[in-house]
Amino acid sequence: MADNNLIKELREISGAGIMDIKDALAEGGDDKDKALEILRKKGVAKMSKKADRVAKEGIIESYIHGAGRIGVLVEVNCETDFVARTDDFKALARELALHIAASNPLYVSQEDVPAEVIEKEREIYKEQAAGSGKSDEVIDRMIDGKLVKFYEEVCLLDQPYVKDPEKKISQLIADSTAKMGEKVQVSRFARFVLGN
Amino acid sequence: MADNNLIKELREISGAGIMDIKDALAEGGDDKDKALEILRKKGVAKMSKKADRVAKEGIIESYIHGAGRIGVLVEVNCETDFVARTDDFKALARELALHIAASNPLYVSQEDVPAEVIEKEREIYKEQAAGSGKSDEVIDRMIDGKLVKFYEEVCLLDQPYVKDPEKKISQLIADSTAKMGEKVQVSRFARFVLGN
Repeated sequence: MADNNLIKELREISGAGIMDIKDALAEGGDDKDKALEILRKKGVAKMSKKADRVAKEGIIESYIHGAGRIGVLVEVNCETDFVARTDDFKALARELALHIAASNPLYVSQEDVPAEVIEKEREIYKEQAAGSGKSDEVIDRMIDGKLVKFYEEVCLLDQPYVKDPEKKISQLIADSTAKMGEKVQVSRFARFVLGN
Repeated sequence: MADNNLIKELREISGAGIMDIKDALAEGGDDKDKALEILRKKGVAKMSKKADRVAKEGIIESYIHGAGRIGVLVEVNCETDFVARTDDFKALARELALHIAASNPLYVSQEDVPAEVIEKEREIYKEQAAGSGKSDEVIDRMIDGKLVKFYEEVCLLDQPYVKDPEKKISQLIADSTAKMGEKVQVSRFARFVLGN
């Protein structure tokens, strides 16, 4: 028996009829992607605009620096359209776009850093500490400390806010959450440098 | 004997003298990276800002649609900063950003579509045609035709220009190239839809 949420989701994505969706799920072993493929093969999926619709509110903000040499796009989310339209929320999105242009983060949060990148960093720190004559325990603590520094360099949420370096970006966002009474978060960003 | 283009490239990257570059290439067996390393070790490569400099000029343009529901970032390149500063070039970048917002391309060109995506599409078209009773040859032609349509949907350069659908984006860019007397190209874009 297919899950109702799955049926609903497939209906939103494909625009196909409920019976077609149930058949496709039965045939595809309740796998969403397989069901979608079956629906497309049958020609009943309308790969229309519906796939664009989702529940998250907020705004997408852009910032162009240096006459087009750096460009930033950032998505800042909140829970309601009401908050998304406020000047405070718009100002926050603007600040985040400016900050990203200036501070060049590579990831939104620590969770977004690929495991192999962290492994590579640990390895480098280990090599650096190798000749120090310190105990393994001390070296481990040194490595952890260097990783914290690494996150502060490459993760947006851990970076010091360019206009107030005492404050991390995560704090800037937490302040907004408190002020607006809604969860506020950055879901993604893009940063282009000309010719890179 | 080292290739002249290689010498020219190393000169642009390193800023070293021609004779040093020739020596480094001879020593490094005409390998670019090895030669660069030799030049750096000799201290004659200025790895300063020059490595940052690339032959690509142009601008990064953004466009935000629907009060922040869709955002686009696009890098449009030309050969000289002179052309990049012209109103014509800026207008082209603007048009491309607007077009991307409206037409939702997924890739810049056909070469950017992953092989597995094309394979998957072919498979779907094959299934759709399976019951038609047509010969394999006819079905193959149908599949090729559908792939052309697919490219026109998902590749920026193959999309009909939203403001003049008789013209493809590749033609719009070719027109600019002819008008500006320089190679003009789109190297990348990002398109965010709120909540996606």
